[in-house]
Amino acid sequence: MMIDRLIDKIQNMQNPTTMGLDTRLEYLPANFLPDTINFQSAAKAILQFNKSLIDAVCDIIPSVKIQSAYYEMYGYEGVKAFYETARYAQSKDMIVIADCKRNDIGATAQAYAMAYLGQTPMVDGMAFDADFLTVNPYLGTDGILPFTEVCRQRGKGIFVLVKTSNPSSGELQDLYCGDQRIYEIMGGYVQKWGADLIGAHHYSSVGAVVGATYPEQGAKLRQQLKNVFFLVPGYGAQGAGGKELSGMFDQNGCGAIVNASRSLLCAYKQERYKGLDFDRATREEALHMKEDIISHIG
Amino acid sequence: MMIDRLIDKIQNMQNPTTMGLDTRLEYLPANFLPDTINFQSAAKAILQFNKSLIDAVCDIIPSVKIQSAYYEMYGYEGVKAFYETARYAQSKDMIVIADCKRNDIGATAQAYAMAYLGQTPMVDGMAFDADFLTVNPYLGTDGILPFTEVCRQRGKGIFVLVKTSNPSSGELQDLYCGDQRIYEIMGGYVQKWGADLIGAHHYSSVGAVVGATYPEQGAKLRQQLKNVFFLVPGYGAQGAGGKELSGMFDQNGCGAIVNASRSLLCAYKQERYKGLDFDRATREEALHMKEDIISHIG
Repeated sequence: MMIDRLIDKIQNMQNPTTMGLDTRLEYLPANFLPDTINFQSAAKAILQFNKSLIDAVCDIIPSVKIQSAYYEMYGYEGVKAFYETARYAQSKDMIVIADCKRNDIGATAQAYAMAYLGQTPMVDGMAFDADFLTVNPYLGTDGILPFTEVCRQRGKGIFVLVKTSNPSSGELQDLYCGDQRIYEIMGGYVQKWGADLIGAHHYSSVGAVVGATYPEQGAKLRQQLKNVFFLVPGYGAQGAGGKELSGMFDQNGCGAIVNASRSLLCAYKQERYKGLDFDRATREEALHMKEDIISHIG
Repeated sequence: MMIDRLIDKIQNMQNPTTMGLDTRLEYLPANFLPDTINFQSAAKAILQFNKSLIDAVCDIIPSVKIQSAYYEMYGYEGVKAFYETARYAQSKDMIVIADCKRNDIGATAQAYAMAYLGQTPMVDGMAFDADFLTVNPYLGTDGILPFTEVCRQRGKGIFVLVKTSNPSSGELQDLYCGDQRIYEIMGGYVQKWGADLIGAHHYSSVGAVVGATYPEQGAKLRQQLKNVFFLVPGYGAQGAGGKELSGMFDQNGCGAIVNASRSLLCAYKQERYKGLDFDRATREEALHMKEDIISHIG
């Protein structure tokens, strides 16, 4: 199961982090920019930059999270770069989280599940072949089961949005229904959806997205959802540090993987890494992030 | 504003429907299937089929709704077919609803908004250039404002998921928070998000998705949300008919557009259209659907 492979890699590298490839043209060092900028050349430049970063950290970071929006922004050429970034990361033994937040009614959710985690009928090929996919639960159980079914068949995993890292996430997610908040109710569903997909490390293939910017809620969810692995965005540029993260982990220092995007992609712009090549700056920032988190989870 | 153009087209054609292009290879007549099936040939065949259907109905149906999942299922080649289907529909003066249900935190929602409704920075091109986009509201206001901002700048529109057509939509959407259900609360947000984007027909560029399979809830929302135009899926294969739809419309027979996908795409498989070419069968079914709906909204 992919969740076991992910946890094994985290433990071997002693690094519960994922590099968020929210790559946009504006983030690239000048020498990566094409002379003539169009969707094709932009997508190609982004792919080259991603490959360099993957080379720079693949021995110290277990996973990449590829944020689909930044590839779709460059049209189908960008989507091709998303696909090729995933292939390159997997060739370097990194685990690929496709951050697409897909969601739809049953039959269409099944198409998304096949697209990102499974095989396409009649073509008998894998369209994107990610290892994990993020999913939005607004439509309820029949919008989720097609994804868990593919997880079961192919050993893949999903992360379901529970408590997101953005400032207004509470508008819907913090509402009380009876004595429980929406995000707590959703957490309960996630635990249920993944109850029969639990791996060797006691975590399920059905995980939850819990923002680092809400440490109290995260710690409470950690207590509530014993078998649910957390994908934790919001570290770095969004404001959370290692201290905010400690409650997301269990007593063994397991149970979560923390994402940082801009702080890694744009490390070369930071004063403290001045003089370093962009890829070396990202590697230094990755090591700094690892130490910051490890020091807080013991 | 695109919402005005949509309503004008609906009124001119006397047809408040959109053709859902949830096209998958299994739906194509045998003569469309390529000899060797791979992602590229599959995507090409789907595009050709879509073009034929657009040709068959573009004088009687104002809009197409292109369901992204079924294109992503064929990888980036499929996404290219999504793009080209949108271009072809617009060349035939049809209004394109990109059914992508995108959602993310602010900065990333902005990338999605630029991808589907706006321009991509530095490239200065339009990645997908749809007219409307469906959006999922689980993340709250700061996940929506980047979309409404692009609507304001470029006259485009969005449809926000409020009450979806699937059987388990109520798990989250029907929960009571105080004396209001979640879908009613979301409906209130939609009205608010679109309050300063109201066009000549008194409907806003910020609309709502309300499933035809929930006629009572739809009728109640219609009363509650005076300026919110509805995109109504669930007609045909999902079980709803014209009778279920009447409450979705206002007293002038305006205020909603109804989607059908499989019943149109696969009309040629129906016994009653036996002997007709596939495109002729779709046209007959489109006229049948129009009559069914019009007869119930007076």
